[in-house]
Amino acid sequence: MSARRRSVALLGSGVIGAGWAARFVLNGWDVRLYDPAPGAAARAAGVLEDARTAFGRLTLAPLPAEGALRFAASVEEAVAGAELVQESAPERVDLKRGLLAAADRVAQHGALICSSTSGLRPTELQAEMERPERFCVAHPFNPVYLLPLVELCGGERTAPEAIERAAELFRSVGMQPLVVRSEIDGFIADRLLEALWREALWLVSDGIATVEEVDDAIRYGAGLRWAFMGTFLTYRIAGGEAGMRHFLHQFGPTLELPWTRLMDVPELTDELVEEVVEQSDSQAGGRSARELEQLRDRVLVRLLQALRVEETAAGATLAAWERSLLGEAAPTSARLVPPEWVDYNGHVHESRYLQLFADATDALLGELGVDAGYLASGGSYFTVETHLSHLRQLEAGDSVYVTTQLLDSDEKRLHVFHVLFRDGESDPLATAEQMLLHVDTESGRAAAAREPVRERVAELARRHGELPRPERAGRSIGVK
Amino acid sequence: MSARRRSVALLGSGVIGAGWAARFVLNGWDVRLYDPAPGAAARAAGVLEDARTAFGRLTLAPLPAEGALRFAASVEEAVAGAELVQESAPERVDLKRGLLAAADRVAQHGALICSSTSGLRPTELQAEMERPERFCVAHPFNPVYLLPLVELCGGERTAPEAIERAAELFRSVGMQPLVVRSEIDGFIADRLLEALWREALWLVSDGIATVEEVDDAIRYGAGLRWAFMGTFLTYRIAGGEAGMRHFLHQFGPTLELPWTRLMDVPELTDELVEEVVEQSDSQAGGRSARELEQLRDRVLVRLLQALRVEETAAGATLAAWERSLLGEAAPTSARLVPPEWVDYNGHVHESRYLQLFADATDALLGELGVDAGYLASGGSYFTVETHLSHLRQLEAGDSVYVTTQLLDSDEKRLHVFHVLFRDGESDPLATAEQMLLHVDTESGRAAAAREPVRERVAELARRHGELPRPERAGRSIGVK
Repeated sequence: MSARRRSVALLGSGVIGAGWAARFVLNGWDVRLYDPAPGAAARAAGVLEDARTAFGRLTLAPLPAEGALRFAASVEEAVAGAELVQESAPERVDLKRGLLAAADRVAQHGALICSSTSGLRPTELQAEMERPERFCVAHPFNPVYLLPLVELCGGERTAPEAIERAAELFRSVGMQPLVVRSEIDGFIADRLLEALWREALWLVSDGIATVEEVDDAIRYGAGLRWAFMGTFLTYRIAGGEAGMRHFLHQFGPTLELPWTRLMDVPELTDELVEEVVEQSDSQAGGRSARELEQLRDRVLVRLLQALRVEETAAGATLAAWERSLLGEAAPTSARLVPPEWVDYNGHVHESRYLQLFADATDALLGELGVDAGYLASGGSYFTVETHLSHLRQLEAGDSVYVTTQLLDSDEKRLHVFHVLFRDGESDPLATAEQMLLHVDTESGRAAAAREPVRERVAELARRHGELPRPERAGRSIGVK
Repeated sequence: MSARRRSVALLGSGVIGAGWAARFVLNGWDVRLYDPAPGAAARAAGVLEDARTAFGRLTLAPLPAEGALRFAASVEEAVAGAELVQESAPERVDLKRGLLAAADRVAQHGALICSSTSGLRPTELQAEMERPERFCVAHPFNPVYLLPLVELCGGERTAPEAIERAAELFRSVGMQPLVVRSEIDGFIADRLLEALWREALWLVSDGIATVEEVDDAIRYGAGLRWAFMGTFLTYRIAGGEAGMRHFLHQFGPTLELPWTRLMDVPELTDELVEEVVEQSDSQAGGRSARELEQLRDRVLVRLLQALRVEETAAGATLAAWERSLLGEAAPTSARLVPPEWVDYNGHVHESRYLQLFADATDALLGELGVDAGYLASGGSYFTVETHLSHLRQLEAGDSVYVTTQLLDSDEKRLHVFHVLFRDGESDPLATAEQMLLHVDTESGRAAAAREPVRERVAELARRHGELPRPERAGRSIGVK
């Protein structure tokens, strides 16, 4: 029923080799792994387990049935019948050259042979191969099963078809091939990484910053832009509508300043400026600075939200700021209904009504003393039930406000009734009746509210007890 | 009723000054902006508009009422009464020094005075100030309203209290202060950025890569790690359980290799290795390599998913791979809970539960024949009431699905009951009971459903009539 599975031989099972194994197995390839070092099998199994967890979260698309992961006792046994041989041995030319030549002797006729080297030149690596035309560098990044980049670089005797085949093959397992057109030490990515790394070591060596301060200087700032734009596109935007030329003229002179320890810098000749500007225009593909700025903002917002879920790096900063906003929450004030709340029917989506009411509940809780300090102490109210009634329709651009009445309460519960109005109108647009439960956030269980919240709830209950009970309170849903 | 608003004077309204204006206005500060250049006001208004859009998407926490953005005709007018003066003029020492001295003469007694310079030394900038003790560098990153990093650096005559006050102030508007303890050109972040940028220019200058290839080498690979881990923590993980010491011993020798054009490298003495290892241990805070790997994978998955929503950079690669996996297989009805649904409490916002249920209602209506043609003919169902019950909590990344039961119906109404499940579990996460009313969209009034919807409703009612009635149907809310 299923086509014959594709198969790959992996030579070397360190962090990189084990990462390759995981990516191929989870893409349905059979993997044969050769590594004489002790512990290689256990490490590969551990990485595969982590990768499985990551893929389970990564996508809802139906993954193919996993390939088989087997260990081979020799290079020959690993390589026999494989469509791809991927070498990930330690970074020693002699070692890699010998392994690749051995693999070349036994690999099947149509096999492709690649090396994971992060910086050694393919011409040197293919020196002892009988069929060097089928060899190229395929340099991945850790973790290999998640990061898409793979740099492809051929040597002097590599056939162009080998690069094309490799690009297609790695794309089929979810990667992003980047063809390195000139054979240089370190290719493209590692030259950039090494420059950053060397400067980082200087900062520590000179006693300017600790390793944590260096990392913070990256991850709270430029690192967020590098995750999706790199360095040139970022600077193009910094140049405004005048783009890359303006940026180079404005900030070019800083190249002369002692802003790194690495002072051997290219001269910004007219020719180099022209070349960068032209390539940058081509990269922008007709998008204006404003379009690029808006794309940048949309993506940054998504990245910050993603980091917030893990409360890590810039996401932790965002979460702390939000908690402080919650602490200062003013009583609900009017707000505008934004255009993105309108669904394909031209109506404000029903979930947005609940968002407005939930904000009103947050404001009420703020007034009752449920602030950042109270939350940090482990007490919080959770919504357990909501009864929404839609009476009239909201429009984008409406200015609206919510009134809130405490209908009832006990030591653990708040029963509230919200009404949504358009500014200047007395007929409600919608109502929401809610039951909130006080929870000890450590145990996750219902628990009595503490002071000062308890006293404030009692005080509000006294005041609101004098209000008439809303007509729609206590409704249940039914056709008759 | 509300406390007096805090106020900031901004000197200079380029990309950075306008970004500061947006961050402060949206955090409820009054802003007075001085910039004699033509077009400054329009630019600031444009940036504020973009920042408003970004903040609207960024958080569900209640934002404070916006501060006022005003333009001042002179430094004196801008600075009068401000709690903070932030200078963001072009990077010329003489210009900045003069502006800062002028601001210092008129600023109120307790005001803090900061410069946005990306590399000039604070001691030089404070040279002409009468009260230099209240001055420090506060260097932000573009876009200032979204990126949290701000580097704080004092000069020889800066009081330590000024740095402390600045840290607190910038933290209150959602930023992450990084105190630069040694006064050096370029501080910490820009030294790293410049190292990368200079190497990137060499790659283009040497004809090795285009600007787009350089950016791709970053954004599909290491850039994703830099967004949350920086460079040292990443390499610690690459060293496995043996950590930083192993990494330095294994990859230290590559420092000797010509892997960048920037070859003036620090010597890896035993002392430097010890220092890096010790600081790295402290940064890891007792987390094992495996724990750090798992954190890295979780965050990478979230970042890739965030990028996929915008189909940009590595997110576009992921989307293309998913489409190839889907092939002709039927799309699954399960869906993933995206990270942006999580609120400041770390919970999925209650309105998102309703969004899931509303989507299930849309799917039901589609099956009943309420399609584009039916809608165009003037018939539609509107939700008039919803009763939500929250039973257990959703987490970002959960794969979930909804079951739907038609409880009752007549010619105008549908009474439905939805249950939300996590994949592979039998205990529901939440339920929603809804009443839908059929409407003639031209008159806006309730009206009987037409064929073929009417017949399909009758047929579904017959089938679902045999199912047991859900226990939670027909509830009303009350403390009793």
